[in-house]
Amino acid sequence: MPELRKDIVTGRWVIISTERSKRPDDFRPTEMAEIKKESLTFCPFCPGNEVKTPPEVFSVRESHSAPDQPGWKIRVVPNKFPALQPGPPPPKKSRGVYQWMEGVGVHEVIIETPDHNQEMAELPVDHLAEIIRVYRSRTIAIEEQYHHQYVQIFKNKGKEAGASLSHPHSQIIATPIVPKRIKEEIYGAERLYRNHFRECAFCRMLKEELTSSERLIYQNERFVVLAPFASRFPFEMAILPLEHSAFFREITDEDSLHLAKALKQALSRLKSQLIDPAFNLVLHHAPNPQVSDKAWPGIYSYYHWHLELLPILTKVAGFELGTGFYINPVPPEVAADYLRKDEQVKS
Amino acid sequence: MPELRKDIVTGRWVIISTERSKRPDDFRPTEMAEIKKESLTFCPFCPGNEVKTPPEVFSVRESHSAPDQPGWKIRVVPNKFPALQPGPPPPKKSRGVYQWMEGVGVHEVIIETPDHNQEMAELPVDHLAEIIRVYRSRTIAIEEQYHHQYVQIFKNKGKEAGASLSHPHSQIIATPIVPKRIKEEIYGAERLYRNHFRECAFCRMLKEELTSSERLIYQNERFVVLAPFASRFPFEMAILPLEHSAFFREITDEDSLHLAKALKQALSRLKSQLIDPAFNLVLHHAPNPQVSDKAWPGIYSYYHWHLELLPILTKVAGFELGTGFYINPVPPEVAADYLRKDEQVKS
Repeated sequence: MPELRKDIVTGRWVIISTERSKRPDDFRPTEMAEIKKESLTFCPFCPGNEVKTPPEVFSVRESHSAPDQPGWKIRVVPNKFPALQPGPPPPKKSRGVYQWMEGVGVHEVIIETPDHNQEMAELPVDHLAEIIRVYRSRTIAIEEQYHHQYVQIFKNKGKEAGASLSHPHSQIIATPIVPKRIKEEIYGAERLYRNHFRECAFCRMLKEELTSSERLIYQNERFVVLAPFASRFPFEMAILPLEHSAFFREITDEDSLHLAKALKQALSRLKSQLIDPAFNLVLHHAPNPQVSDKAWPGIYSYYHWHLELLPILTKVAGFELGTGFYINPVPPEVAADYLRKDEQVKS
Repeated sequence: MPELRKDIVTGRWVIISTERSKRPDDFRPTEMAEIKKESLTFCPFCPGNEVKTPPEVFSVRESHSAPDQPGWKIRVVPNKFPALQPGPPPPKKSRGVYQWMEGVGVHEVIIETPDHNQEMAELPVDHLAEIIRVYRSRTIAIEEQYHHQYVQIFKNKGKEAGASLSHPHSQIIATPIVPKRIKEEIYGAERLYRNHFRECAFCRMLKEELTSSERLIYQNERFVVLAPFASRFPFEMAILPLEHSAFFREITDEDSLHLAKALKQALSRLKSQLIDPAFNLVLHHAPNPQVSDKAWPGIYSYYHWHLELLPILTKVAGFELGTGFYINPVPPEVAADYLRKDEQVKS
């Protein structure tokens, strides 16, 4: 059973995974090469290999096709090597001075397309909109079924971004505690709301960004793509809904299409301007409204869901991980200027 | 001029570097290969090439040798491509809703040995102790000369850890604000002191760790090496002084030798058990006592300086950077057990 453990000084929780447990030998270059070779020869996410994943929990597929058979367009399966075991929220326990929990949560994989070689940036906007609606359905289903505090949707593209399989896929990890970064954003937005703006800090920022437009990359009637003022990474982008909303789960079918257009623009510009870099895509939204009403009162008025798109172009791991202080060699205004210039992008 | 910018929601500051500024072309694989090739043929840190670095600000060298000439054992120079420009702390400014500062600070390089191929793990304990005393001298000198809030000492070893030159070196970046991670540790330790332990949280943890010893890797009369309970990374280690102290700058000459022994043990065990992985070494200590008395009242009573040793063995960048939630595939008890077993290590 994996464990969730809390660093008592910083309050940061980590997952100590046992399913994926490794011994020092596993980090030897020869072992890693073996694993790599193996994964090149066979893809468990390709049509025809459905039996190689756990049974699907959701799919978008042809009307007469059976579960776990070909005929799907998008397929959601439990992760075969889950970071957390499936189940309801576990109680907090202590061990001397430390706090921990059993590593219970949800870990699913969203296989985005049957086509092994069609990256997210290349999918038609309609298909992207369907993926966004699957994100929404799974968020609602997991929140209502398991009552975990937070449903994290993310995508690792490319091995530098941590992807172990190249077939296009996203992941969902639902955790019994709210991740540190989300907590910081919620507390920060609440503080700004109460002490400064008397409105959502993200809405206020959006107004300024749309006025100055120096960091603006793309805009449609419902969504904005911009380079954040204090970007940590070169060519980092944020995608935000223009209309205030804390809960991604409330996105409409129509807005899913507008978001798909914005996401397609962001991904295509990144791919063409930076020659297809690895990236991480992370959804930040409010914690589960089923369980967090008491812990996060009035959250709907001061949080604002958004997507972070983080290209992996520099090796920043060390100093930054040790201090939380990022050095970004590309001013966001310069990044926005380059990303705006891409005229070849079609939506 | 670089800039320091604050993310208003999370309060995280970043350095937007201009000296190291890059255009999209710089991230193209061919360009990167060119840079790599160039750096293979010439080392600006080797003896005889002193003129290729800015003039030294400190050195440990033979008694009759001149500055910026061979004859040195340890050499400290300003970084040729500094993340921050040298100077006194700049004022905070605003730009609409955002806060920023001119990117002023200190960025120095500590060349640890004249021998290009002698890694820190291979240096004799006496030499390591001298490096630690140089860390101490530069910390004190920078704190007193520039009045920056925080002096960050760190080392990136190997390109996966962000090192651009292979000649063994550490770095110092002094910043006009206290980095986020340090702030979190100080606030967290203060909270635990006041609300729970009525003593330093690190001292309390050390007592428990020494009693259970399941995460203990090495101990001498003054320092402990252990695998933290909530380790973020496989084989992560922390090195802590047994005696309570917030200020690394107060380390004695004698304790520098004990710390050197502990550091040598940690580095050698990592190198032999994991086959010489890339790593980051980060010093966490109290902010500059010259300027932070008011901001951090009584800090010395609840903070406890320490070193974090973070091996780079997994690609964790993306999900973790997006959420602050780490998945560690090696339980710290298992890591400690492996690292304890290394009987070949001589001090």
